[in-house]
Amino acid sequence: VLGEHGALALQYGPTEGDAGLLAEIARLMEADGTVGLGPDRLMVTSGSQQALDLVSRVFLAPGDAVLCGLPTYLGALGAFSAAGARLAGVPLDEHGLRIDILEQRLVELRRSGVRPKLVYVVPDFQNPAGVTLGLERRTDLLQIARDFELLVVEDSPYRALRYAGQALPSVASLDREGRVIGLYTFSKILSPGLRLGWVVADPEIVARLVVAKQAVDLCTSSLAQVLAREFLRTGRLEAWIERTRALYALKLEAFAGALEDALEPSWGVCFRRPEGGLFLWVALPAWMSARRLLDHALRENVAFVCGSAFHCDGSGANTLRLNFSYPSVEQLREAARRLARALARMRTEVPAARAQTEPRSIEVPLASGEHSLDQLSWNLALTEVVV
Amino acid sequence: VLGEHGALALQYGPTEGDAGLLAEIARLMEADGTVGLGPDRLMVTSGSQQALDLVSRVFLAPGDAVLCGLPTYLGALGAFSAAGARLAGVPLDEHGLRIDILEQRLVELRRSGVRPKLVYVVPDFQNPAGVTLGLERRTDLLQIARDFELLVVEDSPYRALRYAGQALPSVASLDREGRVIGLYTFSKILSPGLRLGWVVADPEIVARLVVAKQAVDLCTSSLAQVLAREFLRTGRLEAWIERTRALYALKLEAFAGALEDALEPSWGVCFRRPEGGLFLWVALPAWMSARRLLDHALRENVAFVCGSAFHCDGSGANTLRLNFSYPSVEQLREAARRLARALARMRTEVPAARAQTEPRSIEVPLASGEHSLDQLSWNLALTEVVV
Repeated sequence: VLGEHGALALQYGPTEGDAGLLAEIARLMEADGTVGLGPDRLMVTSGSQQALDLVSRVFLAPGDAVLCGLPTYLGALGAFSAAGARLAGVPLDEHGLRIDILEQRLVELRRSGVRPKLVYVVPDFQNPAGVTLGLERRTDLLQIARDFELLVVEDSPYRALRYAGQALPSVASLDREGRVIGLYTFSKILSPGLRLGWVVADPEIVARLVVAKQAVDLCTSSLAQVLAREFLRTGRLEAWIERTRALYALKLEAFAGALEDALEPSWGVCFRRPEGGLFLWVALPAWMSARRLLDHALRENVAFVCGSAFHCDGSGANTLRLNFSYPSVEQLREAARRLARALARMRTEVPAARAQTEPRSIEVPLASGEHSLDQLSWNLALTEVVV
Repeated sequence: VLGEHGALALQYGPTEGDAGLLAEIARLMEADGTVGLGPDRLMVTSGSQQALDLVSRVFLAPGDAVLCGLPTYLGALGAFSAAGARLAGVPLDEHGLRIDILEQRLVELRRSGVRPKLVYVVPDFQNPAGVTLGLERRTDLLQIARDFELLVVEDSPYRALRYAGQALPSVASLDREGRVIGLYTFSKILSPGLRLGWVVADPEIVARLVVAKQAVDLCTSSLAQVLAREFLRTGRLEAWIERTRALYALKLEAFAGALEDALEPSWGVCFRRPEGGLFLWVALPAWMSARRLLDHALRENVAFVCGSAFHCDGSGANTLRLNFSYPSVEQLREAARRLARALARMRTEVPAARAQTEPRSIEVPLASGEHSLDQLSWNLALTEVVV
């Protein structure tokens, strides 16, 4: 890239992104079912975290209400909060965001005089809960967005990383009204170190986000953009994603299997294999504290992210997120054993632990009644495992 | 870098920046007179535009007053405005920001109940006016910042690009109170395509900016950081800057000389050779419109930035900024001839042009009375020349 495109790669570039990269992205999006994207409906961002920040700056004023999953992606909570937004959580079940409860909340908010601006969803292999939004819920979401005049921010970082089941159309591809702002990233399919994401939206929305980006960082790294553009032009991204998918599927199986082997069923620790993405979401029995488990786990040199960080209402104290994409298969197997040891040790301290954690009684957002407790409880927790 | 540090360069990194790069930056800063910088006083940003944005987000609330040069850097006006700040302009003369007028304005603002939060300066080879803040004014600025409890944002993108005269200590290096937030960038000394800048400030300020950056882009490109770190470790940056300096000095001489040759003294077009930086700041006679000159220049395939863009009060209609670092010496010589032709053509249209532009009477921020009109008028204008 430096040899052939050095003068371009080392200079400033247009705020909306390199035209050649945008053309490659339009091709990617077309393969994903979002057809006919002109350059006026696309822009490059410095990672999709920047897109969350730009959307927040352009569309949210202090006090504005945003609806999001309970739990939902930490970085989105950070971006919305930085803009002064108030966050209203909507629980998930195994088919993703409970659209019926979303509608209830919208009605309640409207009754109390609040008009939310946008709803934030991660439809595919949600971070942290791993669940995927059902097809009917995707169309219902668009209908509700129309009824309540909401923007939908669809964050799709993991969409290409499916290990089981059938791909569902993105919410953006089903949108006929320009209500959906689709956020994508090269971080999970190429490299996070490039800090490259992109936005798909209505031309008017893209134009406003581009103006906001001017004051934020002028433009995204030209070097990173030309690297990605040239890699996409070789046509090797698909094979690379295929390889990544196979590797992560293997890691998920190894980790989930090792956890099943290591955890006693009587402990009441629940998780479910996601169909894609990077995370296992774990629910401990409701009286157990993930924070306290973390203390034990750190003594075993295993770390994870406590689930409460993903809950805008501060709930989820018994949940944790485990990442399975970064460690090796051997590290994952060892991590499962160490986590089990930490849990076993924590259980021997139950009286003390219970005394400490019981005062923090947790309001669990219940999923629909058709599932057993084990199937329900996984929709709460989160963890990042590092051995 | 990919061969030896690929795993690091392609991954997420810490929000405050790569520790190895920060150590190299501390060494750079020490050579520049800012000694004893621990990592808690430094952070990496995605270009120094991001630093302007972060400072605005952390320290400015809507309605807050910011003092800046008249003219000053466009991107700073954008970042402060995006935060809802009100901008108070302070004129420049050939020794930079008029600190006496800054003090007057602060007294006036205080009298009207306004307490400004910060003052923004580009002390070395200011963008767009090319002027350098005198040594006494640097210490006076710090005294005034103390008296009025202001933060000083010192933006130093061009500091290393001095072609004549003696380097003055940075305001940050003179600061004993932690009031100065120093902004630096690799854009002008290595490559703008990397989008790499850094901030030097009090540990408490750095900590707040790092928290804000988390929600903005998680971290700056690891690839760009490791590339810069490894280049700095080779010790070749100084020689590279030396080479850049020699090249730009040559271009400045060629362009300024060609403009002097091409412009009739009777036309009253003024500019002054800056001691460094990238820009020639040009003042047309007060009745002339740079915007109208741009129309003529574009027909000659020459472009520049109209000076009014750099004036927070909308003044400066007769000024323009010419960039001399990007075009080749041959292009600069040709650009000077074409600009002169555009000016000559514009002068033949004087009656029409005068009729159109006279209604926009310009409030010229006057510099001190000790300079002739020619010496005064350069402190207004700006231009980017592309042939």
